[in-house]
Amino acid sequence: MTVLDEILSREEFRGLSPAEFFYRNREIAGFSNPSRALYQTVRELVENSLDATELYSILPNIDVGISIVSEEKNIVKVSVRDNGVGIPPKEVPNVFGKVFYGSKYKLRQSRGVFGLGVKMAVLYAQMTTGSPTLIRTALPKSKNVYEYQILIDISKNQPIIVSNKVYKNKSKWHGTFVELTLEGNWSSARSRIMEYVKRTALITPYATIRFKAPGIEFSFKRVTRKLPPPPGVGKPHPKGVDIELLKQLIGSALANDNSLTLHEFLTQVFDSVGTKTALSFLKWAGYDPRTPISKLSISQLDDLARKMKNYTKWRRPKPHSLSPLGEELLMEGIKGILKPEFTSAVTRKPSSYGGHPFVIEVAIAWGGQIPASDKPILLRFANKIPLLYDEGVDVSRKVIDSIDWNLYKVRFPAPLAVVTHICSTKIPFKGVGKEAIADVPEVEREIEIALREVARRLKRYLSRIERQLEVKVRYVTISKYIGEISRALSIITGKDSKLFEKRLKLMVNQKILRKEVKVHETK
Amino acid sequence: MTVLDEILSREEFRGLSPAEFFYRNREIAGFSNPSRALYQTVRELVENSLDATELYSILPNIDVGISIVSEEKNIVKVSVRDNGVGIPPKEVPNVFGKVFYGSKYKLRQSRGVFGLGVKMAVLYAQMTTGSPTLIRTALPKSKNVYEYQILIDISKNQPIIVSNKVYKNKSKWHGTFVELTLEGNWSSARSRIMEYVKRTALITPYATIRFKAPGIEFSFKRVTRKLPPPPGVGKPHPKGVDIELLKQLIGSALANDNSLTLHEFLTQVFDSVGTKTALSFLKWAGYDPRTPISKLSISQLDDLARKMKNYTKWRRPKPHSLSPLGEELLMEGIKGILKPEFTSAVTRKPSSYGGHPFVIEVAIAWGGQIPASDKPILLRFANKIPLLYDEGVDVSRKVIDSIDWNLYKVRFPAPLAVVTHICSTKIPFKGVGKEAIADVPEVEREIEIALREVARRLKRYLSRIERQLEVKVRYVTISKYIGEISRALSIITGKDSKLFEKRLKLMVNQKILRKEVKVHETK
Repeated sequence: MTVLDEILSREEFRGLSPAEFFYRNREIAGFSNPSRALYQTVRELVENSLDATELYSILPNIDVGISIVSEEKNIVKVSVRDNGVGIPPKEVPNVFGKVFYGSKYKLRQSRGVFGLGVKMAVLYAQMTTGSPTLIRTALPKSKNVYEYQILIDISKNQPIIVSNKVYKNKSKWHGTFVELTLEGNWSSARSRIMEYVKRTALITPYATIRFKAPGIEFSFKRVTRKLPPPPGVGKPHPKGVDIELLKQLIGSALANDNSLTLHEFLTQVFDSVGTKTALSFLKWAGYDPRTPISKLSISQLDDLARKMKNYTKWRRPKPHSLSPLGEELLMEGIKGILKPEFTSAVTRKPSSYGGHPFVIEVAIAWGGQIPASDKPILLRFANKIPLLYDEGVDVSRKVIDSIDWNLYKVRFPAPLAVVTHICSTKIPFKGVGKEAIADVPEVEREIEIALREVARRLKRYLSRIERQLEVKVRYVTISKYIGEISRALSIITGKDSKLFEKRLKLMVNQKILRKEVKVHETK
Repeated sequence: MTVLDEILSREEFRGLSPAEFFYRNREIAGFSNPSRALYQTVRELVENSLDATELYSILPNIDVGISIVSEEKNIVKVSVRDNGVGIPPKEVPNVFGKVFYGSKYKLRQSRGVFGLGVKMAVLYAQMTTGSPTLIRTALPKSKNVYEYQILIDISKNQPIIVSNKVYKNKSKWHGTFVELTLEGNWSSARSRIMEYVKRTALITPYATIRFKAPGIEFSFKRVTRKLPPPPGVGKPHPKGVDIELLKQLIGSALANDNSLTLHEFLTQVFDSVGTKTALSFLKWAGYDPRTPISKLSISQLDDLARKMKNYTKWRRPKPHSLSPLGEELLMEGIKGILKPEFTSAVTRKPSSYGGHPFVIEVAIAWGGQIPASDKPILLRFANKIPLLYDEGVDVSRKVIDSIDWNLYKVRFPAPLAVVTHICSTKIPFKGVGKEAIADVPEVEREIEIALREVARRLKRYLSRIERQLEVKVRYVTISKYIGEISRALSIITGKDSKLFEKRLKLMVNQKILRKEVKVHETK
């Protein structure tokens, strides 16, 4: 055998299907062990249910159930049921059985984005217990409920339909019910899952979530019926364009109308580009606005893409594809869950990075039922998803740790919690497990500005408390002498000491206590 | 329009190709900005070159070149050339132009595993500059050099061959040369890239790496010609089996021989399973060893997979598919790069998690050119890849921070560096960007044991230095009195004080200084 033969015989080149890739590398999607996999399964299902309700202005009702099938074998059953818009029956097999398949590949804020999460749960159930995933779904006004049992053909990345039934929709239900049987460690995942549900309730105060697991049953009832306006679907922003995207967009624009000019193309296809912006840009870039896009050469395309990226005078992306919670709802959520003495929230104006619009919301909560700790407790959210793992590499932790809290009258240990929430059509997650957010400079800056604002408000609150305490101390100190002074005045003037006492008390009250401010109301 | 129509019209279900998925989510693979993308491109190419050499017992010669194409537009050209085994010409388009395609999907320690890295670099070059990637390659003894220019059809996940040439291989070269033109920020990536090359040289002391970039030219020459033995290809370990894998393995075993018994199947297909182990397991699991595997039902398969996973008496996986560096080479590397005063290394015995064999190597380096800092400097490696990002969530950092360094006579700030290296057929990376390692308990434990061992050695070294210092102090203290005592003795005895002085000095030398030990040699 020659060296060449030997090498070729040793090397076997092949392609993997996406399902096989994630089957082999499941820890990348958060399915690294029976405890984490159970946590991840619950969150993927809950997040899909929340997307299926609030994106369509439905007040979410979500039932989460976990039961133990075999203690000894570590097998659990997870089910989640919602009152959402359901899934068109013919799409069910692919939505659950084909990696990288979904309806969320658009410019709009949603929890799901990768087309991966629920398939990973299906895959994990299949490989650990061999069980198919059960799905029941009904669209609004559907006369039937559709039921499927799905497995995944891993090497082909295709769904396998194990069974398929149709029932009458007697209760006029709409929504989706999913049930999986998987290897999972409930006792070790328990506290994380409960924390996850609690934080989800905080960030979606308009949702009712019922939770049932071995020995536990509780529900978070909605504290408000007000839903934030659902996000619209956005257009791409010129700042976020690369050569590939530009080619795609020109291709589809030409398919519609092949006489389109550069100026028309820019104003029709992109976000926040009006006639004036388009003309200024084209002048700066050195293009005639009347050039038909069909006439552009490849090298002109390259040049145009680069200039669109480098141009500094685009207007900010429009935030209508975002759906932040808003200061009021965020504070409602915090009061309901953390039960602090003081809370304050800031929703920043929309900003952008690399053509993606984003909004930062930061809230601070102090005292009450918040336990004292050595640094601020951080609750992170991204598109209303609570993030529980990998806090150490998250941009929010970085910002919080960089702040000198002494400036804000906070001395640790202190009962302080910080809530950060980023909404974007494109969250800069560090991994497909969706746990930590990268330190994109624009995001970092917005978080810092918002955090300093709420921290200043906390400082004012703490100052008021401090003053109030001082006042009380002075009042007590001065009051001690009232009796003695009254007696002395009584001796000098011959009048009743009771009179002086009464008048002096009144004077002290007026001079000192009126400075007191009400501090126990939550701002 | 009914509610249903409206919902359906708003939702568009579709599938993404793997190329499109990673094109949209490039930051997940480490391509988050022009600085990080340049760093990631260099490392993907260098790591492929190292795999193409040392896996085949070739001493690596690697040339890395970075040049600036346009300062203003942030465009750079990156090239890497090696003396490896090359790529079979017909495989070149897929290897560079099809995501999830490769030759490394086997049970063997290698740097590349995902079939993703170099395609991401190709994709990134294409979307930022529109340029194809240039590849030249020749197998050993090949009469020709094959040249390709490749782009990727993103929506189909297929290579586009832009050009394809064949040259005579006049210089009898073998290896691969890759050149990409991409948007990259050299000035901000510079220090990371240089640190990366330096650390690569540390962990591959048998490689020569030449590096040329704007204003910089240096090379790390190999400090040894000794290569660690290349890893063999392993079989799956029964502990790591899930139902899917078991089905696949039974399927291919049956294709060969459909009368195979359970006992034969176990001993032929799995790692570290001999007749005795197989019989013990089957007895425990309640199966007759003579059962033909073709007779197993689906529910028996499920049961068998679960029992294989839960059985506690398997032998450890064989480590022949691993290629650790070894204590000696690791210390060579550290001496060459960090130039410490003291260093010591431990290569642990093979261990395993979830059926994957792994070996932990830990070294400690002290003093010399290591700068003093407030906590140990950590240099992390996985399958000989330096890991530079996301240290905060890496298992090694966790172990190091959990150690009370006072126990080992280390007081910070101290000139202390710790090197950790994990070798495995399956590194538990936290993301496809290959930056941080998850805290798998078995891995954590091995790192801690190894670290405590080298820390104890450091303590012994530091104790020796301490004693030596004490001795010197005593010597100096006592020596001060020799003159006076000699004069006194001279007066008392009438003998020459010089004589006493000489004898006293000799005595002090013998009694005190002989305790001194040589400490400046590197252990």
